[in-house]
Amino acid sequence: MKNNRITQLFGIEYPIIQAGMIWCSGWELASAVSNAGGLGIIGAGSMYPEILREHIRKCKLATKKPFAVNVPLLYPNIEEIMTIIQEEDVKIVFTSAGNPKTWTGILKAKGIVVVHVISNSKFAKKSEEAGVDAIVAEGFEAGGHNGREETTTLVLIPMIRKASDLPLIAAGGIGDGTAMLAAFALGAEGVQMGTRFVATVESSAHENFKQKIISTVEGDTKLSLKQLTPVRLIRNKFFEEIEAAELRGASVEELKTLLGRARAKKGMFEGDLEQGELEIGQISSLLVKSNLQVMLSERFGRNSSGQSQNLPLLIFPDSGILLPEKLMYF
Amino acid sequence: MKNNRITQLFGIEYPIIQAGMIWCSGWELASAVSNAGGLGIIGAGSMYPEILREHIRKCKLATKKPFAVNVPLLYPNIEEIMTIIQEEDVKIVFTSAGNPKTWTGILKAKGIVVVHVISNSKFAKKSEEAGVDAIVAEGFEAGGHNGREETTTLVLIPMIRKASDLPLIAAGGIGDGTAMLAAFALGAEGVQMGTRFVATVESSAHENFKQKIISTVEGDTKLSLKQLTPVRLIRNKFFEEIEAAELRGASVEELKTLLGRARAKKGMFEGDLEQGELEIGQISSLLVKSNLQVMLSERFGRNSSGQSQNLPLLIFPDSGILLPEKLMYF
Repeated sequence: MKNNRITQLFGIEYPIIQAGMIWCSGWELASAVSNAGGLGIIGAGSMYPEILREHIRKCKLATKKPFAVNVPLLYPNIEEIMTIIQEEDVKIVFTSAGNPKTWTGILKAKGIVVVHVISNSKFAKKSEEAGVDAIVAEGFEAGGHNGREETTTLVLIPMIRKASDLPLIAAGGIGDGTAMLAAFALGAEGVQMGTRFVATVESSAHENFKQKIISTVEGDTKLSLKQLTPVRLIRNKFFEEIEAAELRGASVEELKTLLGRARAKKGMFEGDLEQGELEIGQISSLLVKSNLQVMLSERFGRNSSGQSQNLPLLIFPDSGILLPEKLMYF
Repeated sequence: MKNNRITQLFGIEYPIIQAGMIWCSGWELASAVSNAGGLGIIGAGSMYPEILREHIRKCKLATKKPFAVNVPLLYPNIEEIMTIIQEEDVKIVFTSAGNPKTWTGILKAKGIVVVHVISNSKFAKKSEEAGVDAIVAEGFEAGGHNGREETTTLVLIPMIRKASDLPLIAAGGIGDGTAMLAAFALGAEGVQMGTRFVATVESSAHENFKQKIISTVEGDTKLSLKQLTPVRLIRNKFFEEIEAAELRGASVEELKTLLGRARAKKGMFEGDLEQGELEIGQISSLLVKSNLQVMLSERFGRNSSGQSQNLPLLIFPDSGILLPEKLMYF
């Protein structure tokens, strides 16, 4: 997997990126993923500036390998966050939920690698114009903030591949080596996974939330809050209240009031499964109990033996590397 | 691609199935696909019984290769349709939109191969219990009648693969060799494509509809009519009326009245792009003008040379066959 543009850009071993996620991806998860050969990301979206500084410092102590920080550009303390990122000498920044023009030039002038998260061709082109180094294309399946077009990863990746020559990371619906292979077949050069990493020992998600994730079945998550910023949620009491409000034609203001503050923290970090907001991707229904006990440091990057029988092999002609299909990364 | 369970089951050369679609897949399209080495399907859903008989007879004259008939089990004249299928000695039947138990046994007793279309694990298991020979798993991306769980093909195929050992055909979001490769990576053994076949010379879709399909961009289709039977539609005047009614909380009865009769025929067969119902898959936004001019009989199954440079190759270890990734089937 050497000679891949994504591994080269970040200086990592596997083109596997752990999504920056609110309340779930602090320094422990990020450093574990980086130590395992992927790219770990600290999710700044749920951190006060000084908390972020602390996580960056701890991450540096926990790994000598590259890691990144994800910054939602709608973040209220954005100036402060970006100052800390520069002060703490973060080498890679993923930006999302905003215009890539605002910060890309400033960060790149400091030698920082910039990646922007998009969900349609229009923003792929905007990202290219802004001078980003790579893009993450995130499909309908994802837990994170989703595109209004509802384009799925299967359709989105070839679409973005047509629209831009930038190094391309696929996100949404990817939780194991099988889906990673599918993403590569579609034209991706790396994958970003969120849900699968929330359900690991090193994730800072509340244990209740982790247990809830592995107990979901098909149809248990739904794209919600489409009038505000669309996000995929586990159906619970909070979800039902939001849905009922939307069905009765509630205004954006009403929805904002209902959503309130700290709902995501309450659900994902404090473990309130009824009143909390539980953001997760559609692949949660594919996860099982044993996934939870996996320590990234032990398993990541290893092939689960005996699983590639009768399965296709993938050859990268430019590198000569054989990649067994059923690489179960962890 | 020999030794694949799907090609063996149907006696075809490529594991590519053309979806049975209302108003678009008559004998001309079905026989063209079958002659090209795939499996063509006559869509009975929009045909009066005697019209179906005519299409079956014409299809037999146009090809000596296997073809199938698709029957939505909600069809009002279902008894008559099934009688004609047996009288006309149809060898393969795809059933959809209903309980597979009702007809599978009867058809199989006559030596007919039966395939059922599903969109969740529950119906995969029901299909297995009913004794079907294979299943089509159809994701959120598809144009046809979609599952309420909104599970995308990327998540659905591994899910169904876990739930059942039946020969598995992936549908939804698949329009070329790249997506076909992705589907195989996920565990599918065949693909069913609808949208891509609607936009061919041999399809009976109205020329206006074909032109509309290739002009769509991301976000131009949306899963609609969720309270009745969910279907993916192109956003037009008719769609907007339905959406407005849904937003104001219209009852199922009101929606049925608004939908009325013959809306699908008006749109897809008669070419009324404003008042008609235009069912199509999300991959329509990936299609371009040149796709329309392709005669299946000329191109199907051939590799578009020069496209597999630097791209992965897929090896099926059990058959030893190399499949260039970018097989552009037509």
